[in-house]
Amino acid sequence: MLWFDGAISDDPRTGFDLRDRGLLLADGLFETLVVTNGRAFMLDAHLDRLLAGAAALNIPVDRKSLRRPVDDLTAALPDGGIIRLTLTRGVGPRGLRPPAQQQPAIFAAASAPWSPNPTAAEVRLATSRIRRNPSSPTSRYKTLAYLDNVLALEEALGRGADDALLLAVGGRAACTSAGNIFVIQGENLLTPSLDDGVLPGITRALVLDVVAPELGLMPQEMSLSKGSLLLAEAVFLTNSVALVTHATELDGKPLSRYGRETVEQIRTEILALMD
Amino acid sequence: MLWFDGAISDDPRTGFDLRDRGLLLADGLFETLVVTNGRAFMLDAHLDRLLAGAAALNIPVDRKSLRRPVDDLTAALPDGGIIRLTLTRGVGPRGLRPPAQQQPAIFAAASAPWSPNPTAAEVRLATSRIRRNPSSPTSRYKTLAYLDNVLALEEALGRGADDALLLAVGGRAACTSAGNIFVIQGENLLTPSLDDGVLPGITRALVLDVVAPELGLMPQEMSLSKGSLLLAEAVFLTNSVALVTHATELDGKPLSRYGRETVEQIRTEILALMD
Repeated sequence: MLWFDGAISDDPRTGFDLRDRGLLLADGLFETLVVTNGRAFMLDAHLDRLLAGAAALNIPVDRKSLRRPVDDLTAALPDGGIIRLTLTRGVGPRGLRPPAQQQPAIFAAASAPWSPNPTAAEVRLATSRIRRNPSSPTSRYKTLAYLDNVLALEEALGRGADDALLLAVGGRAACTSAGNIFVIQGENLLTPSLDDGVLPGITRALVLDVVAPELGLMPQEMSLSKGSLLLAEAVFLTNSVALVTHATELDGKPLSRYGRETVEQIRTEILALMD
Repeated sequence: MLWFDGAISDDPRTGFDLRDRGLLLADGLFETLVVTNGRAFMLDAHLDRLLAGAAALNIPVDRKSLRRPVDDLTAALPDGGIIRLTLTRGVGPRGLRPPAQQQPAIFAAASAPWSPNPTAAEVRLATSRIRRNPSSPTSRYKTLAYLDNVLALEEALGRGADDALLLAVGGRAACTSAGNIFVIQGENLLTPSLDDGVLPGITRALVLDVVAPELGLMPQEMSLSKGSLLLAEAVFLTNSVALVTHATELDGKPLSRYGRETVEQIRTEILALMD
């Protein structure tokens, strides 16, 4: 199911303009949202992040225009689902420079249904050769320049793992192909700081700001080495669709399961927020 | 003028599939070619580079399919022009993983006419805050993940310059927003090595392999500091459309014009190859 040009359709072959800069130059942004219980979970936070990215990229767009496709598709997903909302800078002339008058393009796709796993899925990580580049805005905003993530995931799968661990260029742990990383150590809940080339995840913020205090955990953003992942009581990953998954292996070495119960508690708290 | 689905059209609003991974994830590649004297200049080299990128990204495509839109558009550009050829991995399901059966998409756009400047244009460079990431395949192949280049150029223009100098994450000179960098020092013709996050430019290769020997210059690929640009007899830039431009300023400091004549000779040699 697609939303394009103000209407919902099942035909993906729309009148999309081949001169669109999102297609030609990855000049745009996106968000992925879960719809459950009749609403798009954390919609305001997703729109905030998208608008922050648009401001950084200087793409003129208002909240209402971004919200409309999500509202329309949410109403069409009675059993829940997943919405991907895409914003591009729109059509431009040949070359890298944006046009003087920008006309952003907005479209969205929905798939159904969505339901959470009974328990946190387990994933094996393999460290990617591709590193995150904190100097690039593409590391801080959810831009269409997502090819590194695609290739890092393929690399990890090719090595028999389930997902990639991406380090920043300096060697610190950053993220997975589509998620943030957390480490549990006693009452401490640690996650790489945004300076290390990390996307400010919506579920990441929820864990830091809402879930951790509720469970009596001490959240901290700080640089994490690969070694600190291997030494932790548990390593888990967050993203907006899988919510919380448990990393059980890194480059063939087992990660601790000692903190597994805490991982499940965090996940249960997030699910409770969805009700 | 556009080439899509086997036909040339003036309507950019085709039946392009909104689920295409080039649009959603920058999962694709492109080339920009100049058409002059009835042929696409350096066509084989452009196709070689595109096919090398497709192999690295594991996108199945053959040379003939890539060549056809260029041939068709070349025939429709009697006064010369510029062709941008785009290849994407095609449609995929939700998420980062490519589909088991890939159906790449190919399209192209043409603009006309094209004619060379009478002499090498002069550009002022400003060093970008965005750095090149040599660990990323997007630094070595001409992928659709081009947003860093777009933003670096806007940053440079905002600072009163004409183009951006991008350093690699380690601090070495890499390239401009859409071109390679060369330094002239006596008989030496130096350019950053590909390990420093540099795209293997078609014009870059032409200068190294054909033009330099013809002019008795000694081409060398090596790491270059920003200081070596400031000390050189001349700094020039290459790309497939502007061919050779002369960098006359870096971050407000004048660059030497002592080697200007050599810059013009190099440009003249390339223009002669186009005849």
